[in-house]
Amino acid sequence: MNSALSFLIGARRCEIDELDQLARTSALVGTIGTLVHALQRERGISNVWLASGGRRFAAQREEQIAACLRAEEAVRSSFGRLDTEAPRIGNGARLFSRIAWVLPGLDALPELRRRVAAMALSAAEATAAFVKLIAGLLAVVFEAADGATDPEISRLLVAMFNFMQGKEFAGQERACGAAAFASGRNDGARQQQWLHLIESQERCFQVFVEFSGPALGELWRSSQPTAQLAEQERLRRIACAAPPGVSLDTELSQTWFDCCSRRIDAMQTIEERLAADLRLLCEQKTARARAELQAHEGLLAELAIEPGAASAAFFDEPPAPVAPPGQPRALAAPAPFGRQLERSVLEMVQEQSHRLQAMSDELETVRAALNERKLVERAKGLLMAYRRMSEEEAHKMLRRTAMSQGRRLVEVAESVLSMAEYLPADPVR
Amino acid sequence: MNSALSFLIGARRCEIDELDQLARTSALVGTIGTLVHALQRERGISNVWLASGGRRFAAQREEQIAACLRAEEAVRSSFGRLDTEAPRIGNGARLFSRIAWVLPGLDALPELRRRVAAMALSAAEATAAFVKLIAGLLAVVFEAADGATDPEISRLLVAMFNFMQGKEFAGQERACGAAAFASGRNDGARQQQWLHLIESQERCFQVFVEFSGPALGELWRSSQPTAQLAEQERLRRIACAAPPGVSLDTELSQTWFDCCSRRIDAMQTIEERLAADLRLLCEQKTARARAELQAHEGLLAELAIEPGAASAAFFDEPPAPVAPPGQPRALAAPAPFGRQLERSVLEMVQEQSHRLQAMSDELETVRAALNERKLVERAKGLLMAYRRMSEEEAHKMLRRTAMSQGRRLVEVAESVLSMAEYLPADPVR
Repeated sequence: MNSALSFLIGARRCEIDELDQLARTSALVGTIGTLVHALQRERGISNVWLASGGRRFAAQREEQIAACLRAEEAVRSSFGRLDTEAPRIGNGARLFSRIAWVLPGLDALPELRRRVAAMALSAAEATAAFVKLIAGLLAVVFEAADGATDPEISRLLVAMFNFMQGKEFAGQERACGAAAFASGRNDGARQQQWLHLIESQERCFQVFVEFSGPALGELWRSSQPTAQLAEQERLRRIACAAPPGVSLDTELSQTWFDCCSRRIDAMQTIEERLAADLRLLCEQKTARARAELQAHEGLLAELAIEPGAASAAFFDEPPAPVAPPGQPRALAAPAPFGRQLERSVLEMVQEQSHRLQAMSDELETVRAALNERKLVERAKGLLMAYRRMSEEEAHKMLRRTAMSQGRRLVEVAESVLSMAEYLPADPVR
Repeated sequence: MNSALSFLIGARRCEIDELDQLARTSALVGTIGTLVHALQRERGISNVWLASGGRRFAAQREEQIAACLRAEEAVRSSFGRLDTEAPRIGNGARLFSRIAWVLPGLDALPELRRRVAAMALSAAEATAAFVKLIAGLLAVVFEAADGATDPEISRLLVAMFNFMQGKEFAGQERACGAAAFASGRNDGARQQQWLHLIESQERCFQVFVEFSGPALGELWRSSQPTAQLAEQERLRRIACAAPPGVSLDTELSQTWFDCCSRRIDAMQTIEERLAADLRLLCEQKTARARAELQAHEGLLAELAIEPGAASAAFFDEPPAPVAPPGQPRALAAPAPFGRQLERSVLEMVQEQSHRLQAMSDELETVRAALNERKLVERAKGLLMAYRRMSEEEAHKMLRRTAMSQGRRLVEVAESVLSMAEYLPADPVR
């Protein structure tokens, strides 16, 4: 029985280890949220600076760069707190390689800013650079969500990832609309992209509401005053329903930008609340797991005093049925010696298996919400391998197909994957 | 660039850590295979001993118990080599809790043997005890397969689990047939169970062939001489096609037992080969990962000498498309300084992400083969929670339904799960 209990304790230690690691990645996700928000603002400000030939937003740009540097510092030190020397992390390899991917992007920021300052690139080029960096940061959040082993924490991380991704689509929509109004007209391709950004962000916020729980969902709804939503929809309609070629009121550019910015800034509040909830949940779970570990260790100490002759209790009919999944029973009642103690260990073992089983079932359900993105990534990989495309080209091709066929991106990705067997056996080299 | 490379190296370390852990669990799986084989023989011998009122197999039983004790010792020391103090294992919690479940079973073996020696239980009771213990050992192998993070190793572990499970069904079929022939008649219920055992083992061996690769598949086919298969099928037909009540030739009991035993002993050879392949694969993979880690570390040392000014290479169009998934490119060519070096780090990072993505896609495909068992477990859990059943009762109920409706166990499990929403909101307490 002693050795069984040691493994039971080992299992608990694994859970605690994972919770500790989750607390660190959750903190990291929080700092990434702040950095992404700062970079989204810098992207918007840089656009105006470039589009105005350097006449507008010079001071705001300096201020925003300073804010970005502070947020970047926090992200870098969260990265530093992940232990790459002695990693004990579920999908550590994937998380670390996403971080390795994004770090050169952070390193290259000063050079990007130098070029923006020198007007050495267009607003579109600057936007593309920020989009790429933010996508890299979101990929880190995605892996953190996908690697979580606790279903409740995973649930909040999935909500967080989707919220951040939705916010990024909202930021891209702001840039897209600002460019359209500023240029005084909209064309068909931009309208299509705009609609795609609206649809993608709505999908993300749906998933967020589904996974974040009622309190945050309510906060999200109340953070978007109806008047503001109506104003945004009116501006969307003016630009997107206008027949190509019809000119747009360039004055609306600022109105649009301000309207979007109010909405996006409100999102930042929700995101901070989510990050705080996540921290709290990690703390609570760790505390509970530690308390249970102590109880197990206490029992082990008792068993060491009274080793209890091995009996065939294992082979007898099992005791009363265990608690339903997800509802662990209280630890075995006292009266803890001899055969009774042995029984209580057997019951604990059985309860633990059922609890872990229930957790892993639930985890699977939660992770399914991440599958859409995985399908899209997989389809991109296929196109890259077989059509010699870069990642950007593959993504554009998928999006173009989705737009022209009026289907969702994930549906196109599924079609591409289902056609994989018709591709030549050997990819183009 | 330095920090990106450190995370790239951290990602590699994670992989190596996981491979080391996989090597340990693979070794454990090998020792479990030997113990299960020994216990299967002890189960058969104990049955004959009990059925013959202690007249037959007394010496064989002593010998077999000695063999079991040796195999048990090996399993226990493999358990001991898993580090429960500082676990670094993917699904460690689940693996450890399965081990915690099975250890009391091993502890209870001496008592079980004492009762067998004293004829204090029936052959059916002894069989049930051994079946329960073996099922616990197979559950450990299942978790080892489900927790593997390397798709090739996972593939072999899935093959191994299915082979071991198939072999166990074959062992149960031997016992079932031996009891039928020995009693001189077969009844409908036993015929049904017998057919279920045939179908289940065939399904397991199919999955084994699918995942073990052509060489082992060939070995498996050639290990089963046609004449022997024909003899087994003939005996199956005699017993299972006989109308209930018709008497069977009791002399066939020994013929049946020997025929099955030859087949099961041949299985042991395949299993040992699988275990050896698994060990070899783990060694090769670890060696390769370590060599790549060294190459990365060499590059990091070079970068430390020549830090290379941060440029905006990250934001430029990506270099030539990466290798197709699953085919990592060679490390970047030499000419390793300054911007060129930076590019090669970016390429390495990108290749690593794509490689990890491809690995995780493949892993998902391999693990899908384990889903059937998971569905059955989940359906059992549901029945236990809502119908106040023990695990055994739940399993019997599912199997009975499958038999009476002529459906596969997994199909019944799926139906049960799909009806979950019709169950009352609160399970019976």
